[in-house]
Amino acid sequence: MEQKNQNVFGMIGLGTMGSNLLQNIADKGYHCAGYDNSVDKVNSLNALHNENIQGFSQLKDFTDSLKSPKVVMMLVPAGEIVDNVINELLGVLDKGDIIIDGGNSHYTDTERRYKELEDKGLHFVGMGVSGGEEGARRGPSMMPGGDQEAYEVLKPVLEKIAAQVNGEPTVAFMGKGSAGHFVKMVHNGIEYAIMQLISESYEIMKKGLKMDNDKIHEVYKKWNEGKLKSYLLEITTDIFAYKNEGEENLLLDSIRDEAKAKGTGKWTSQAAMDLHLPTPVIDIAVSMRDLSSLKDLRVQASRVYPDSTEKQYNTNEAEYCDQLEEAFYFAMVSAYAQGMHMLYQANKEFKYELNLDLIAKIWRGGCIIRSEFLEDIYAAFNKNPELQHILLDKNVAESFSKSIPSIRKIVSDAVLHGISTPAFSAALTYFDDFRSENMPTNLIQAQRDYFGSHTYELKAKEGVFHTKWVMENIKN
Amino acid sequence: MEQKNQNVFGMIGLGTMGSNLLQNIADKGYHCAGYDNSVDKVNSLNALHNENIQGFSQLKDFTDSLKSPKVVMMLVPAGEIVDNVINELLGVLDKGDIIIDGGNSHYTDTERRYKELEDKGLHFVGMGVSGGEEGARRGPSMMPGGDQEAYEVLKPVLEKIAAQVNGEPTVAFMGKGSAGHFVKMVHNGIEYAIMQLISESYEIMKKGLKMDNDKIHEVYKKWNEGKLKSYLLEITTDIFAYKNEGEENLLLDSIRDEAKAKGTGKWTSQAAMDLHLPTPVIDIAVSMRDLSSLKDLRVQASRVYPDSTEKQYNTNEAEYCDQLEEAFYFAMVSAYAQGMHMLYQANKEFKYELNLDLIAKIWRGGCIIRSEFLEDIYAAFNKNPELQHILLDKNVAESFSKSIPSIRKIVSDAVLHGISTPAFSAALTYFDDFRSENMPTNLIQAQRDYFGSHTYELKAKEGVFHTKWVMENIKN
Repeated sequence: MEQKNQNVFGMIGLGTMGSNLLQNIADKGYHCAGYDNSVDKVNSLNALHNENIQGFSQLKDFTDSLKSPKVVMMLVPAGEIVDNVINELLGVLDKGDIIIDGGNSHYTDTERRYKELEDKGLHFVGMGVSGGEEGARRGPSMMPGGDQEAYEVLKPVLEKIAAQVNGEPTVAFMGKGSAGHFVKMVHNGIEYAIMQLISESYEIMKKGLKMDNDKIHEVYKKWNEGKLKSYLLEITTDIFAYKNEGEENLLLDSIRDEAKAKGTGKWTSQAAMDLHLPTPVIDIAVSMRDLSSLKDLRVQASRVYPDSTEKQYNTNEAEYCDQLEEAFYFAMVSAYAQGMHMLYQANKEFKYELNLDLIAKIWRGGCIIRSEFLEDIYAAFNKNPELQHILLDKNVAESFSKSIPSIRKIVSDAVLHGISTPAFSAALTYFDDFRSENMPTNLIQAQRDYFGSHTYELKAKEGVFHTKWVMENIKN
Repeated sequence: MEQKNQNVFGMIGLGTMGSNLLQNIADKGYHCAGYDNSVDKVNSLNALHNENIQGFSQLKDFTDSLKSPKVVMMLVPAGEIVDNVINELLGVLDKGDIIIDGGNSHYTDTERRYKELEDKGLHFVGMGVSGGEEGARRGPSMMPGGDQEAYEVLKPVLEKIAAQVNGEPTVAFMGKGSAGHFVKMVHNGIEYAIMQLISESYEIMKKGLKMDNDKIHEVYKKWNEGKLKSYLLEITTDIFAYKNEGEENLLLDSIRDEAKAKGTGKWTSQAAMDLHLPTPVIDIAVSMRDLSSLKDLRVQASRVYPDSTEKQYNTNEAEYCDQLEEAFYFAMVSAYAQGMHMLYQANKEFKYELNLDLIAKIWRGGCIIRSEFLEDIYAAFNKNPELQHILLDKNVAESFSKSIPSIRKIVSDAVLHGISTPAFSAALTYFDDFRSENMPTNLIQAQRDYFGSHTYELKAKEGVFHTKWVMENIKN
């Protein structure tokens, strides 16, 4: 046990994620090592008395314990800390060793680090890891990108520790450079969107239908047994059953409504805007977390604008919840579609060499957005790897079309009753423009040309044109 | 005329904006100079034979013609070109001279340049200029920020060339560092939002009410005579009357619907997200321009999802347009409110020392978003300089509240008829959450804690808490 160079995998950062991932690796029969600059965390790791895991509080001891080529994965907070750890590692690793960044680093940082380390002869793999603590322990979904040669070294371990769907692991090489972190970022953007949609369905059931938590629990449970089946609905179902011991009410009811965010959703929206690609369902999910945090402002506003709308819906609850399920399906599909469209575009822009079917495939298990619907996405891209947008897939279009009347009903009722459903609404308005051959944006082009001479294009003639809208014609 | 050191203002970049601004300055009796690296543009300037304006094709000749401290304004494309021009200027300017960047530079670039030039002993003023070509010629709105000492030198000229509202110029010192460009960026974000709202009102009148262009023209004309009076509605009214000579149809009908953007709207949304502030009406305006550009995709989608919704509204046209006017008011106020809220937050974050009333004051004339409603915004901040959000102002709240039933009607009709009104919808959903004391985001916090141990806060107790949602309670 004390001999050197026996460990095949090293982990820097022994938070719950790092520790759980090591235990997962150890379970698969691999010797592995952990390092943290917190002695407490190292002690906690060693206190597991797992014979396959060694914890170290000295970096040099840690890297000395690794087999060559040494594989070191970082699970540390994104940002400067990652650069600091890499700098320390440069002193103790050799050419040909492999550094994995398993945190949620911004893809532009990953791109930079990949190049810097390549210049120094080290392999760098930017890898998104999804599944939370539970996933890390029992099988996450992993999105490695960057150095494919290095990935081939890691592959046996990663495939064993990943979640398995139909006997296949939820890990695959995503593509070049920062591909892994870009894919993970979009995964998180979709996650924000779906969580926002669930919260809106909760708002409708609670404030519109005046349903109690038990009834809401039953609805989510039922949804999770049908075509909406997904990890996020599964945990939502659990949340609607959870009471602290001796408490009468759900813990949920005691939790403050100021939502926090670590930034990956925001990055997704910002990157989509840089790619000139609309992702309004993700954008609004980011905005609504921000709005939720402005509690004082909202309390003030609730005094200035007391709610005079009659919020209670006059409807058959069970039938209405079926329509809500369809509307949720519509909006959820839209969220995935916008995220996949973003990957399609990023692939063209950054030449990642992504395979969209492979991404859908590894998202089917282990990760936070795993869902029944990902089977449909996988099937769509598997059938047509060049598919630009999943709403153009024939099978998706068929079931999606059926949900259109429901989303119209749900959103219009919410609008009239003062129930806020920004993400449902954004999914619908996105769709209605998406399938418009002609948008009213010809007017925007005319306005831009009017005040800024920004020119416009004509339907019937190639080229760009400018008109002196006023002087020549109207006022002179 | 040929003597040196006589010109009080120099302009680099002789596009229409630069040339028009010089003519404006010359009109006010100042001697000024222009420089461009395009000889054609210099020749065009000199061909004006304006005795107060000298055009130069050599940078040294240009700066030699300026009085000390030399004032040089750049109106060149944002980005690297600005840095290149500054580098060239460093060779020909002296300590104490003043460089103004009048383009749409990103505020982070302005912040950097301000510091770099301060270190070199030069004064730097990042100044937003709005009003387009016409504004530049007859009186723009200007938002200078950065070096206040330098502003005092520029003030007499800038106040003369600015638009005048009630005898006061639409220029004022905005604040420190990049304040000027930040304010201008938000101005443009609001501009994007209002243009999007106008295009949606056009969509409703055209596709929903099936009104012809003449009738739509009459509506915009009427709106522009009431509380919606604004430059953007004024030019929209003109656009709905403009035909090329000999043509039967509006030019508007011949213009392609793929809207372009220069990026300031996108920057506004991205910066708002960095400030953790919701600006959904601006965000969706950015997204919809992007969606409009995806023409091929939309055409494909229009085949997959033929429009089966009956788009024609069954309603009284005149009454409906009155409701639409009220709904437009609601959404327009929301756009301004989100922009002003962003300035409030940026001021806290960046310590700009902005005066929000002064900003509203100088936006009342000269700029693209000038409008009757800016008087109300000005009054609100003038009364309460600490006002966090204009929807909390009593007077604004009074008229805004009256428009709520109309926005609910307009949005719900659009939703049911398949007319896309994303910005109207976003304005409404923003409002319904804004005035919610309790949002459903407690569920998001529970979910985040469930899968990621991100912790949550409680209503009744300070601190952060974590629950093992499943293992302890439900499944064990």
